[in-house]
Amino acid sequence: MPRFCIIIEYDGTNYFGWQRQPGAPTIQEAIEDALAHIVRQPVVLHGSGRTDSGVHATGQCAHFDADTNLAPEVLEKALNSLLPQDIVIRSCLSAASDFHARKSAKSKLYSYSILNHRQRSPVGRFYCWHIVKPLDITAMEKAAAHFTGTHDFGAFEAKGSPRSSSVRTVTQAKWETDGQHLTFFIEANGFLRHMVRNIVGTLVEVGRNRLAPDDIQRILESKDRGQAGPTAPAKGLFLRQVHY
Amino acid sequence: MPRFCIIIEYDGTNYFGWQRQPGAPTIQEAIEDALAHIVRQPVVLHGSGRTDSGVHATGQCAHFDADTNLAPEVLEKALNSLLPQDIVIRSCLSAASDFHARKSAKSKLYSYSILNHRQRSPVGRFYCWHIVKPLDITAMEKAAAHFTGTHDFGAFEAKGSPRSSSVRTVTQAKWETDGQHLTFFIEANGFLRHMVRNIVGTLVEVGRNRLAPDDIQRILESKDRGQAGPTAPAKGLFLRQVHY
Repeated sequence: MPRFCIIIEYDGTNYFGWQRQPGAPTIQEAIEDALAHIVRQPVVLHGSGRTDSGVHATGQCAHFDADTNLAPEVLEKALNSLLPQDIVIRSCLSAASDFHARKSAKSKLYSYSILNHRQRSPVGRFYCWHIVKPLDITAMEKAAAHFTGTHDFGAFEAKGSPRSSSVRTVTQAKWETDGQHLTFFIEANGFLRHMVRNIVGTLVEVGRNRLAPDDIQRILESKDRGQAGPTAPAKGLFLRQVHY
Repeated sequence: MPRFCIIIEYDGTNYFGWQRQPGAPTIQEAIEDALAHIVRQPVVLHGSGRTDSGVHATGQCAHFDADTNLAPEVLEKALNSLLPQDIVIRSCLSAASDFHARKSAKSKLYSYSILNHRQRSPVGRFYCWHIVKPLDITAMEKAAAHFTGTHDFGAFEAKGSPRSSSVRTVTQAKWETDGQHLTFFIEANGFLRHMVRNIVGTLVEVGRNRLAPDDIQRILESKDRGQAGPTAPAKGLFLRQVHY
């Protein structure tokens, strides 16, 4: 059976995350259902990883096998004509039989958006975390630098996540600012559950001067979730790109 | 009774426009109801002008009179605690008794956003007009220049709008481009019904090479709505600022 790879953009606001589950709309289910309708057979979609409820993506990647003669570009058009307005297939490609959206991934890039203003903003309110008090962005930039490199991210992993290892390598961790809009970019060879949101929640504690930039080193070494900051809200998080 | 002026941001997606009407949620009604709750008396809100169903604002302005001792900044906080997440009062100020949000306005600035890409984009889909075919932005910029100055905008006014005069002075009409995102800015001493959306619809006809940039002059002179292009969708339009 031919294998296909798709790049997906979605607005996660109205979904219970990526992974199919009974009784709740998910991204995986919406795409699998559309695919099954097109190729007239059940299709299993393998994502590069799960995204949580309310998290967005501009470059999620997934693969599937389907017994079809349809060309990838025809599949792409057919999918987009069936999918709701909050999901779009950006591209559909033929994939090698050994390509695997999760296992073949070399790294992933996430971004996290914050609106740092005394007032909430109605326009775009589903795409950022609103923080009223002015944040110390210089301190947050210093703190962010501590995340690059290979570390045990146990302190930034959701509790109760069984993993063989919580060691990951972060190749990029930086803030970009545009007036009241702060965006955090982080790229790593893999992410633990809630890792980006826990890192952002901790960086915001630094921005509020409740933690010092150099505390990050100590928190990493502690491997203790209780030492890090709270989990940032889902709505500011975007899966930007998966690199293979 | 003291007079107050408020600057309002709203996401118009879920409203039937600005103006109060029976049986349909409107921005005016939402704010009047919140005000009445705070000052315990009916309040009439006078906007700088109406916005249509689905149109957004980051700087709508309105005034009201209320028999209250509350300071403007207290009113602002009270309003924002009552208003839904898609409306926010950006500021509340004391106004002179002869200030009138509509009559005192010297000019208004609108923007209109287009996503020019072969695919729709789920993220931010309520804030732009999606156009698939590549637009000729150079031609659109040339065409836009024809709108500046004092003209009779009869050809760009919604049919059946009775007006003493359709002459307006446009002080700014320009495109800004950022990759696939095109934004049109237009400032004038006043706008006719659907004027911005009709101008954008016509500029897009130029961008599709169905009209030449110099056709704008002819269309303006015709004062004939039938000569201009279609009305652009509401969702790309933002009332940015009212100048007094």
